[in-house]
Amino acid sequence: MKKIAVLGYGVVGTGLIELIEKNKSKDEEAEIHVETILVKHKEKHLKKKLSDKITDSFEEVFSKDWDILVEVIGGINPAYQYVKKALSLGKHVVTANKDLIAEYGDELFQLAKDNRVSLKFEASVAGGIPIIKPLTESLSGNEIRSVKGIINGTTNFILSKMYEEGVEYEEALREAQVLGFAEANPDSDVLGYDAARKLAILSTLAFKKRVFWKDIDVEGITSIDSKDFAYAKRANCKIKLLSYSKKEENKVFASVKPVLIDSESDFYRVNNEVNSVIVSGDAVGELVFKGSGAGMLPTASAVYGDIIDLALNKNSIVINSFSEDKFNIESNLKEKVQSLIRIHTDNKENLIKELNGRFLTAEFIDIFDNEIGLLVDGYTEGEIEEGLILLKELSYVNNVKRILKVS
Amino acid sequence: MKKIAVLGYGVVGTGLIELIEKNKSKDEEAEIHVETILVKHKEKHLKKKLSDKITDSFEEVFSKDWDILVEVIGGINPAYQYVKKALSLGKHVVTANKDLIAEYGDELFQLAKDNRVSLKFEASVAGGIPIIKPLTESLSGNEIRSVKGIINGTTNFILSKMYEEGVEYEEALREAQVLGFAEANPDSDVLGYDAARKLAILSTLAFKKRVFWKDIDVEGITSIDSKDFAYAKRANCKIKLLSYSKKEENKVFASVKPVLIDSESDFYRVNNEVNSVIVSGDAVGELVFKGSGAGMLPTASAVYGDIIDLALNKNSIVINSFSEDKFNIESNLKEKVQSLIRIHTDNKENLIKELNGRFLTAEFIDIFDNEIGLLVDGYTEGEIEEGLILLKELSYVNNVKRILKVS
Repeated sequence: MKKIAVLGYGVVGTGLIELIEKNKSKDEEAEIHVETILVKHKEKHLKKKLSDKITDSFEEVFSKDWDILVEVIGGINPAYQYVKKALSLGKHVVTANKDLIAEYGDELFQLAKDNRVSLKFEASVAGGIPIIKPLTESLSGNEIRSVKGIINGTTNFILSKMYEEGVEYEEALREAQVLGFAEANPDSDVLGYDAARKLAILSTLAFKKRVFWKDIDVEGITSIDSKDFAYAKRANCKIKLLSYSKKEENKVFASVKPVLIDSESDFYRVNNEVNSVIVSGDAVGELVFKGSGAGMLPTASAVYGDIIDLALNKNSIVINSFSEDKFNIESNLKEKVQSLIRIHTDNKENLIKELNGRFLTAEFIDIFDNEIGLLVDGYTEGEIEEGLILLKELSYVNNVKRILKVS
Repeated sequence: MKKIAVLGYGVVGTGLIELIEKNKSKDEEAEIHVETILVKHKEKHLKKKLSDKITDSFEEVFSKDWDILVEVIGGINPAYQYVKKALSLGKHVVTANKDLIAEYGDELFQLAKDNRVSLKFEASVAGGIPIIKPLTESLSGNEIRSVKGIINGTTNFILSKMYEEGVEYEEALREAQVLGFAEANPDSDVLGYDAARKLAILSTLAFKKRVFWKDIDVEGITSIDSKDFAYAKRANCKIKLLSYSKKEENKVFASVKPVLIDSESDFYRVNNEVNSVIVSGDAVGELVFKGSGAGMLPTASAVYGDIIDLALNKNSIVINSFSEDKFNIESNLKEKVQSLIRIHTDNKENLIKELNGRFLTAEFIDIFDNEIGLLVDGYTEGEIEEGLILLKELSYVNNVKRILKVS
C-alpha cells in the first residue's frame, strides 16, 4: 500500500481519483491511499469525492505522511517549487506536466538521482498513449533515429475541422474553444510551443542528450487558410501540425510545423483530438502509437500507471539525458523533400514559364485567381528557399508561401 | 552487470548477440555479459560471434554461474524443461516463446511466483512492438474491453500478396516460403493456431483470467481465394486474418478468422509482415500499436528490453492471470455485424428474389458466373448462420461461404 499526496483537483486530478476509487481492492499489493489533495480554492471542491482530504495549505500537505507526490496542477509555478521540494525530501514524484519537464528536466532529474527517487512523467506527452515507457524501457537496445508525432490535440482538432468543414482558422478555433478543445488564450497550442515542449521531451529521451524546446524551429497553424486545404485536397493530403526530430551522427534536426500529410501516411487518419507518435529505431524499425492524447481519463490512465509502477517498487530507470549537453538543433532537413508552393501573381502565364525553368518536377494546381500552386519534389528545403527568394524578386510575384509535404 | 545464458543461436539469438555487442559500454549499470550459449550442433555456429561461449551440453549451461536464462529456441520441447529448471533454481527467465506461454503459462508463472523471480515474454507476441509491457504495466488503471490484432506475419504476407497480385493462395504461399516468411510446413500459421496462441496470451493479460488457446474458435486462410478478394475490392476492403477478443461482464468472446477490413480501419494499411494490435480500455479508450511483428532484430529488440529490465532490477509484476480459472469462450459475436456472403447457384434470378425477402439490407455484387455476392448489415452472426442454413436447402443453391466484415 502506498500513500500519495495529490496536487491539483482539476480535470486530470478528478479522473485520477476516479481511477483510484474504481481500482480499490483489485490488488492489495498495489493499493493506493490518497492522503491529501492540495487545491487553490477549497470551496470549489467540497462536493467532490474525498472532499475530507482537501486542503489549500501547501504546508499541511508536506506535514503529512505519504510516499509519492502526484503533481497534476500544470504550468511552471507553483508546480516547480512543490516538485523540487518533494524530490529534495526523498519522495517519488509523478507528474503530467510537460512544461515542467521540458523547462526544468535537467535540474529535476538530477535532483531525483541525487535523492535516489523516481520522477515519472508518462502523461506529459501524448496523454494516454504509453510512449515514455516504451521509449525509455522497451526500446533500450535501439539507437533511435527519428521521432515524429501529432502531439497537440488542439491544433489537430482545428485542422480537422478546417479540412472537414472548409471553414477558416478563426471559425475552427472558436468551435474548438466552445467544445473545450482550445483554451481562451490558445497561443501555446496554436503557435506550436506546446508541441515543441513535447517533442523536446521525446527527442531528449530518444537521442540521449538534451534537446531544449526553445531551440526547436516552431511554426504555428495561425496562417493556414482554406486555400491551403483546397490545394491539399487536390494533392490527396490533409494538413497536420507535425513535430519531427531526427538524429544523424551527432546532429539533430527538429521542427514543429504544419505539413501536408499524404493519404498513405499513418498520420492521415489521426483526426481531431487523437495523437500519434512514430518512433524509428535501428533494431525495431518503425513503431506507430496512436490514441487519446488528452482528456480526463486517458491522462489519468497514464498517471495511474506511473503510480502503480512506484507502488510495486518498479522504480524508473535513472534519466540522465536531460542533464547532458544540449544538442545544436538544425531546422532544415538536408534531404530531398516534397513541398507545396503557393505564389500570388498578376501574371500566371509568365510565372508558369519561369517555374517550369526553375523546378524540373513541378506539378501545377491552378484553382484560384491570381495565384498558382505547385508541388515540387526532389529538392532540399534549402534549395527551395533559395529558389523562392529569387522568385520573390520578379515584378509579377506578390507573395510566396511554402508547406512541406510528408508521405 | 548481469550474466546471461542464452538457449538457441538461430535467427533471434543471432540478433540478440548483435544487440548486446552493439550496446556494450553504453551503460555500465545495464551491462550484459553472455556467459554461455546452448546450441544443438556446435559445428554450425563456429564462425559466429562469441563462438567460444557455445556449448551443446545442457548440463554445462546449468553448471555455469549466470543470473538470467534467455530462451530463444522456440517450440515446446526442450524449451519447457529448460525454462522450468531455471525458474525452479530461482533464476529469471526471458523468453520469446509464444507456444510455451500459451500452453504452460499457468504452471510457469506460478513457478516464477513461488521462486520470487520474473518470467518475461515481451517478444512472444507481435515481435518488436511493445505490447506486453503496456498491457501489464501502463494500462493497469484500465478495465480492458477488447483486444484485436493482426499478429501473424506469415498469413498477412500471403494475404497482402493475394490482394496486390491477384494470385491464388497456393502461389502466394510459395512466394512466402521462398522469401522466408513461411515455413516448409506452414500449418501452424496458415491454419490460425499461431495467432490463436498469441491472442490467448494477450487476452489472458487483458481480461485477468485465463483464455486458453485451444478454446478459441479458429479459422485459417487456406480457403480464401482470388474471388473473395475480387468481392473485397468491390467493397473497398482487404482481407486480413483478424484475432479478436472481447469481454462483456463475465463472458469472453474470442476468435481468429479471415475478415474483410474496410479502408477506413487502422488495420487496412497493415501489410506484409507488419503486425498491429488495438487495445480498448475503459479509461484510455482505443490504443493502436503497429510495427515489425517478426524478424531477427525486431524480435531481439523486445528480448533485449526484457533483459535490461531485469538487469536494472525492474522485475516483472507478478502475473497471476494464467493461473486463474479459464474463461468459457464464445465464438460468435452477439452484436449486429456486416458480412460478405457468396452463394453458388444455377439460378441467379430466383436467388436474388429469395435473398431480397430474407435480408432487408442486402447489397448485391454480381461479378461472377453461377454465383452472387452480397453484403448484409444489421444481423448477428447467429441470425446470418440460421438464414444460410435455410438457403442451403433451396434446390438452386449449391454452396455458401461467409466472411465477416470489420470496419
